[in-house]
Amino acid sequence: MARIVQCVPNFSEGRDKEVIEKIVDEVRKVEGTKLLDYAPDKDHNRCVVTFIGTPEAVKEAAFNACKKASELIDMSKHTGEHPRMGATDVIPLIPISEVTVDECVEMSKAIGKRIGEELNISVFLYEKSASSAHRQNLAKVRKGQYEGMNEKMKEELWIPDFGPNELNVKSGVTAVGARMPLVAFNVNLATNNLEIANKIARAVRHISGGLRYCKAIGIEMKERDIVQVSMNMVDYTKTPLFRVFDMIEREANRYGVNVIGSEIIGLVPTAALVDCADYYLKIENFSHDQLLEKRIYE
Amino acid sequence: MARIVQCVPNFSEGRDKEVIEKIVDEVRKVEGTKLLDYAPDKDHNRCVVTFIGTPEAVKEAAFNACKKASELIDMSKHTGEHPRMGATDVIPLIPISEVTVDECVEMSKAIGKRIGEELNISVFLYEKSASSAHRQNLAKVRKGQYEGMNEKMKEELWIPDFGPNELNVKSGVTAVGARMPLVAFNVNLATNNLEIANKIARAVRHISGGLRYCKAIGIEMKERDIVQVSMNMVDYTKTPLFRVFDMIEREANRYGVNVIGSEIIGLVPTAALVDCADYYLKIENFSHDQLLEKRIYE
Repeated sequence: MARIVQCVPNFSEGRDKEVIEKIVDEVRKVEGTKLLDYAPDKDHNRCVVTFIGTPEAVKEAAFNACKKASELIDMSKHTGEHPRMGATDVIPLIPISEVTVDECVEMSKAIGKRIGEELNISVFLYEKSASSAHRQNLAKVRKGQYEGMNEKMKEELWIPDFGPNELNVKSGVTAVGARMPLVAFNVNLATNNLEIANKIARAVRHISGGLRYCKAIGIEMKERDIVQVSMNMVDYTKTPLFRVFDMIEREANRYGVNVIGSEIIGLVPTAALVDCADYYLKIENFSHDQLLEKRIYE
Repeated sequence: MARIVQCVPNFSEGRDKEVIEKIVDEVRKVEGTKLLDYAPDKDHNRCVVTFIGTPEAVKEAAFNACKKASELIDMSKHTGEHPRMGATDVIPLIPISEVTVDECVEMSKAIGKRIGEELNISVFLYEKSASSAHRQNLAKVRKGQYEGMNEKMKEELWIPDFGPNELNVKSGVTAVGARMPLVAFNVNLATNNLEIANKIARAVRHISGGLRYCKAIGIEMKERDIVQVSMNMVDYTKTPLFRVFDMIEREANRYGVNVIGSEIIGLVPTAALVDCADYYLKIENFSHDQLLEKRIYE
């Protein structure tokens, strides 16, 4: 399979179609990328663009789109409900195929450096790319938003990784970082008792003592009269789906409740599911190179 | 993912490198194909070529290679240990990605028709492409081999699907047909009692009353001092890996034996494993279109 990185930049323009098209065109123009989706949101006045490509093409397209946004968006006039700090608010880089997360970290640094040097925009590296622990969480980096950034960057703790430590008034501040693909994975329980779903969510999720790369809450599925453990699996290579599934089944059993089924919402990396087959079939010495499709695009 | 068909033609030449290269070159030459492997065998005097490509490219490459073989190989002088009936002995077509087996059947008919009409070679459609039940099994089609084919094709039951019902003395007879990808899947048992592996093999395999698309035998793994149920899964879409795995586990349990693990030998279609994850995680309404990688090559 080819080397593929996914990039999901968020731009602070969700209303002016012409501006959005011009930014998205910068992605379309770069050979070796493929635009998957872009979703302008009027209330948030924000547009999330999803594209994939080879590492080199993604680096080029991400920078070009950010440059175009810096030309066309004026943050000093921006309003919208979603927290934001820059014309290009955030550039996440996600390893999809034959690329490691470390390579995406390197990419984020290269992109951030260019944005800082060539566009004179302050850049914070976040998530796996963060230069220190307090910068990992995007919400913390963005806290204070556009309006508070000039003050924030004067603090020792918040000197940008690239670019000036003074606000670029027109373009604001951009976060760039590598993260693992997120899998939205829900497990349905044969009960309508929300308390049970919440107890199980607390058992499996990282924040309350559970699995490191699992976020979970209990929710009601009113139409079906059942409850669900709703999860974001934020690194399936380290906290695999089968482990959390088996744990939920066991916890549910403790309350005399069966697991009805599970759901995967949206896209999932093939490897996240192949790893489950590997586990349940107890395959010895399985290599992902044995997947026939890998041979096609190598 | 792109539309991909695998083709594994067998040619009756395993010794003369120049001839083999010229035949393989016909595959290389066609845009849209990718040569994965070719393995000349001197004892069998036979060469198995493996390539993949789009349906159109595979049709073209398969015919061109067959034509080249008809020019360079003289079956009236061929000797070798493997049963064979033609210069191009057999052309199997295997759906890999975004292609149905029915489309491969159509491809086999188009290829067979050209071989019959343009090269004046008798062609039998076999396996999923067979025009009647007694022609499904390749061994039965090939019975009598090159030397017996002229007589055989005079019988009502063995009039070729395409081409003359008289032997093309130089090129012999060719079988063309669609089949599902085969998965070599073995399950290891925590015992060295071969009789138990054989009993389980008989329980799960089609021929003795088990699952329709499963072939199985018990074998000894002397180095590890265990036994194995060794299987060929000949249509994983209809007899899935998880079903035979669970069945073996249950049968083994009847003898107080645990399953140690399993093995997948060689390549496996991704879908065969994703189906297992779907089953064990009890995913509701899963679609293979949710696989991220599918979006890349669509």
